[in-house]
Amino acid sequence: MSTLKDVAEKAGVTVTTASRVINNRGYLSEETKHKVKQAMEELHYRPNELARSLSKQVTSTIGVITPHIAHPYFAQLISQLENAATKRGFKILLCNSKEDHSLEAEYIDLCKSNRVAGIIFCGMILASEQYSQKGFPFVAIECNSPLCVSTILCDNYAGGRLAAEHLIECGCKNLIHFSGIIDQEMPGDSRAQAFTDVCKHYKVTFNNIWTGDSTYYTMDYHEFIKQTLLTYPDTDGIFASSDLIAAQVIQVCAEIGKKIPDDIQLIGFDDVALSTLTTPQISTIHQPTKEMAEMAVESLIKSSGQETVPNKIVLPVSLVKRQSTRK
Amino acid sequence: MSTLKDVAEKAGVTVTTASRVINNRGYLSEETKHKVKQAMEELHYRPNELARSLSKQVTSTIGVITPHIAHPYFAQLISQLENAATKRGFKILLCNSKEDHSLEAEYIDLCKSNRVAGIIFCGMILASEQYSQKGFPFVAIECNSPLCVSTILCDNYAGGRLAAEHLIECGCKNLIHFSGIIDQEMPGDSRAQAFTDVCKHYKVTFNNIWTGDSTYYTMDYHEFIKQTLLTYPDTDGIFASSDLIAAQVIQVCAEIGKKIPDDIQLIGFDDVALSTLTTPQISTIHQPTKEMAEMAVESLIKSSGQETVPNKIVLPVSLVKRQSTRK
Repeated sequence: MSTLKDVAEKAGVTVTTASRVINNRGYLSEETKHKVKQAMEELHYRPNELARSLSKQVTSTIGVITPHIAHPYFAQLISQLENAATKRGFKILLCNSKEDHSLEAEYIDLCKSNRVAGIIFCGMILASEQYSQKGFPFVAIECNSPLCVSTILCDNYAGGRLAAEHLIECGCKNLIHFSGIIDQEMPGDSRAQAFTDVCKHYKVTFNNIWTGDSTYYTMDYHEFIKQTLLTYPDTDGIFASSDLIAAQVIQVCAEIGKKIPDDIQLIGFDDVALSTLTTPQISTIHQPTKEMAEMAVESLIKSSGQETVPNKIVLPVSLVKRQSTRK
Repeated sequence: MSTLKDVAEKAGVTVTTASRVINNRGYLSEETKHKVKQAMEELHYRPNELARSLSKQVTSTIGVITPHIAHPYFAQLISQLENAATKRGFKILLCNSKEDHSLEAEYIDLCKSNRVAGIIFCGMILASEQYSQKGFPFVAIECNSPLCVSTILCDNYAGGRLAAEHLIECGCKNLIHFSGIIDQEMPGDSRAQAFTDVCKHYKVTFNNIWTGDSTYYTMDYHEFIKQTLLTYPDTDGIFASSDLIAAQVIQVCAEIGKKIPDDIQLIGFDDVALSTLTTPQISTIHQPTKEMAEMAVESLIKSSGQETVPNKIVLPVSLVKRQSTRK
């Protein structure tokens, strides 16, 4: 591999000058710049990113901390974050907090040691005050924390409203919403609020069913859904707060002999690939994860460059009609 | 943030001595070590990983290059690689090659600039000879390349055999296998070979249907499956080379009025979460991705430390019976 010294020799300049061209520092004639750049190309020279980062004290790496990786929503979000980062010359250091407080703390320290430009938290941030002074920005997607310079959300309230209105429009009179995690405040809770408001407005029977923390972690909702449907046998419309839950509603309905959408109409949330892979396909609320990933990466990069960024960005959602609902 | 100088001062030693304790270099008395470590703890000092890496010229980072991130198989594999790496004090730099030759080359260069300990390729490696001299090891999971020091595979032949035998045992007489990508040699091709061998042995009618490259990339197999089932209307057993394809077989069968498993029995491959989220749930071949991830990370770390590693590791698969097949 060629070194900076090789480049300098080939260009006929000193190592210091070659270094200044590469790091774009100080005054340099166009001719010198050209000579050095040509030498770099001819020698296939690549600057040592580590050494460059050390002198800048920050890398072009973004830490991404999520509670899940294989969960369809987070897998899609990670894929889009990687995309957004790559487009801007950044790369992703991937960390799975598994909803564990001490594991998350360890990852924040690790990110710090590696001089990341900042951290994007997806869906969950447990960090306490002590981490706000780390010297690099935190950005959050679909989770709340005063420690974050920017929080990117989808319009959860509008999503809940669209879902409830669609079920009512399809003729449902006994609605259930499988909501977020009990005892844990999440932006997604607004979906339940909107659902409640719409149901009250149209005077239909409704129930908000909150899930347990462990169910969210294991991603297995079968027993939970089955118990709920046995408790509320008249249910004819279900709004699930994720497509992952909706897919399992389809399974439980098949098991207990309820047809979708004939007996029970179903709508999910997220619009991840899974919603197109079930039978029937799931009507859902589209969460603009691509745009959310773009904005998160942009906020982080700007903020790490000391630019002012919006501390809250809310992106619009939309209704996607598929086979699990019918007018 | 405290510096090495602060630590040295608090411990009453020179900066050089403090640095030697941290990097475990040269002779040091137990007392000196103890004093420095205590000072580090009291001051919450964390060594700058970048500076340490620069002196070692290699980081505790592993590059992971995959053609997909959100694909259920790769999402699960990435999650397990992250797990395996973290357990060993390594972290994951995540790169999505999108099956693009030049993008992959760029990522390999990027990994080199960042002095990764090595790269794990999942499912696809396009790199040519020029990349074999990068000075760090390549490890492959379910893809073949002479450039890799270690290739981790599941027993694809045994998987194809188990799948075909199970369908025949369930009474199927007209089998179809949705195979890998046409014109592209992949370890998964052994599944088709085994399927062929078993069908010939039991004298049942069979067809291997190869998919196109673009179908693999878009992950949308609907049209392809539909055309196949219209071409072979007597099909009563399908072996899909991924659970992702199997999920779409269920959808197409619902659309054309075929019941699973009554009219057509179906078995997938991989045993990812998706196979438990469809209705009916998919019988499948379990690919031990957790163990494969562990072995890949282990081979990579050992190889980067100049240890000899096996150049091929094959792990056993097993049959998982669910609702899409029945005797």
